Amino acid sequence: MTGKLYALSTGPGASDLITVRAARTLGSLDILYAPAGRKGGDSLALSIVREYLGEQTEIRCCHFPMSADSAEKEAVWNDVAAALVQEVQAGKQVGFITLGDAMLFSTWVFLLARIGNPEWLEIVPGVTSFAAIAARSKTPLAMEQQSMAVIACTAPETEIAQALAQHDSLVLMKVYGRFARIKALLAQAGLLECALMMAEATLPGEQCWHNLADVSDDQPLPYFSTILVNKQWRTAQ
Amino acid sequence: MTGKLYALSTGPGASDLITVRAARTLGSLDILYAPAGRKGGDSLALSIVREYLGEQTEIRCCHFPMSADSAEKEAVWNDVAAALVQEVQAGKQVGFITLGDAMLFSTWVFLLARIGNPEWLEIVPGVTSFAAIAARSKTPLAMEQQSMAVIACTAPETEIAQALAQHDSLVLMKVYGRFARIKALLAQAGLLECALMMAEATLPGEQCWHNLADVSDDQPLPYFSTILVNKQWRTAQ
Repeated sequence: MTGKLYALSTGPGASDLITVRAARTLGSLDILYAPAGRKGGDSLALSIVREYLGEQTEIRCCHFPMSADSAEKEAVWNDVAAALVQEVQAGKQVGFITLGDAMLFSTWVFLLARIGNPEWLEIVPGVTSFAAIAARSKTPLAMEQQSMAVIACTAPETEIAQALAQHDSLVLMKVYGRFARIKALLAQAGLLECALMMAEATLPGEQCWHNLADVSDDQPLPYFSTILVNKQWRTAQ
Repeated sequence: MTGKLYALSTGPGASDLITVRAARTLGSLDILYAPAGRKGGDSLALSIVREYLGEQTEIRCCHFPMSADSAEKEAVWNDVAAALVQEVQAGKQVGFITLGDAMLFSTWVFLLARIGNPEWLEIVPGVTSFAAIAARSKTPLAMEQQSMAVIACTAPETEIAQALAQHDSLVLMKVYGRFARIKALLAQAGLLECALMMAEATLPGEQCWHNLADVSDDQPLPYFSTILVNKQWRTAQ
């Protein structure tokens, strides 16, 4: 049997929001690599997929440091990428799980940059956190000729302000630790009333804030908190 | 038994890229509403989900006209929304399927605007076409501090050009019938080498073009054709 590597998107959090393909693949793996390291993310990806794993599957947790030291991070990416390639060359069915969608704001992309585009690699896409937030809050992402921007709140403030001015709808990811700053930008753009914030969408701890003007700047937030802005939805109804 | 309405995202095309939740829900429906009307889309959503349907499920195809006459379209949306509400009030388990994700460029949003936010409505998110294209082409959407814009090619040309200038990565949807114009905009922005186009991703007819400069302006394209731009990917490798 030929070795194969599957990058498996787990979706936003609820176990049944994984794809049928990822669920079936998980049942046939020899080895599953589960990333750990982010606050709140340590066991989350693994806990999402655990019910689909076969009895034969060996689990390997790999720790990705949040360090600002890029040499340290690159060494880990090199090591994990090399380990994955080695397992495939030994003929194993190997999985690497990744929260949300594997190709959007995911550590997996750093491994992909090292592994390249071999025939034995399959990437299984998943439901993004913002699609889950739109569904749970019943707020559309975009329609017709509208445009949507997906932005990390770690981006420069001028870029965020520019995007807020230009797009009909916006997804602001990585709000954790930056809420006060983002709230101020939304207020400046007159968009507080078109915004909502959701944390841990589809998980038991799910929380949703609709009136961000009333949310304290110091509001403690879970790590997975995202703001959705849709300028036209309220008026369209 | 209380009636319930499920807006079910089918994902990009392959039947096993639907979520486990949508697959399970499909098996328990009394009635399934399947949209028809777009070129190539008539039976696609239904063909994706057919294997998950229970024997008891009654299928109702509803035709959404592509007409430019908004009164005609609104009349259809009103009728379908009213029919869905009526089924729920009669105690039925009702599904409405929608390609890709229900909340992004989907007819479902026009029904949602009419139905509002009742307790008996659940929206099940899905894999977007662009997540599938990223996975199939092994091209990341965005990472770290990058920003991504999702734009319909029906948008004004100046908006598309502006987005091409500002974002690190872009998804250009609804390319069908507009390829020559979009190719010219990409050329002006010096982005032809960072772009790829994919049609019918994850379906048997999947096609991918990597060198858009070599693709003829008259290239016949399937209805579901999307361009992905990632400015940093080639150089990052």
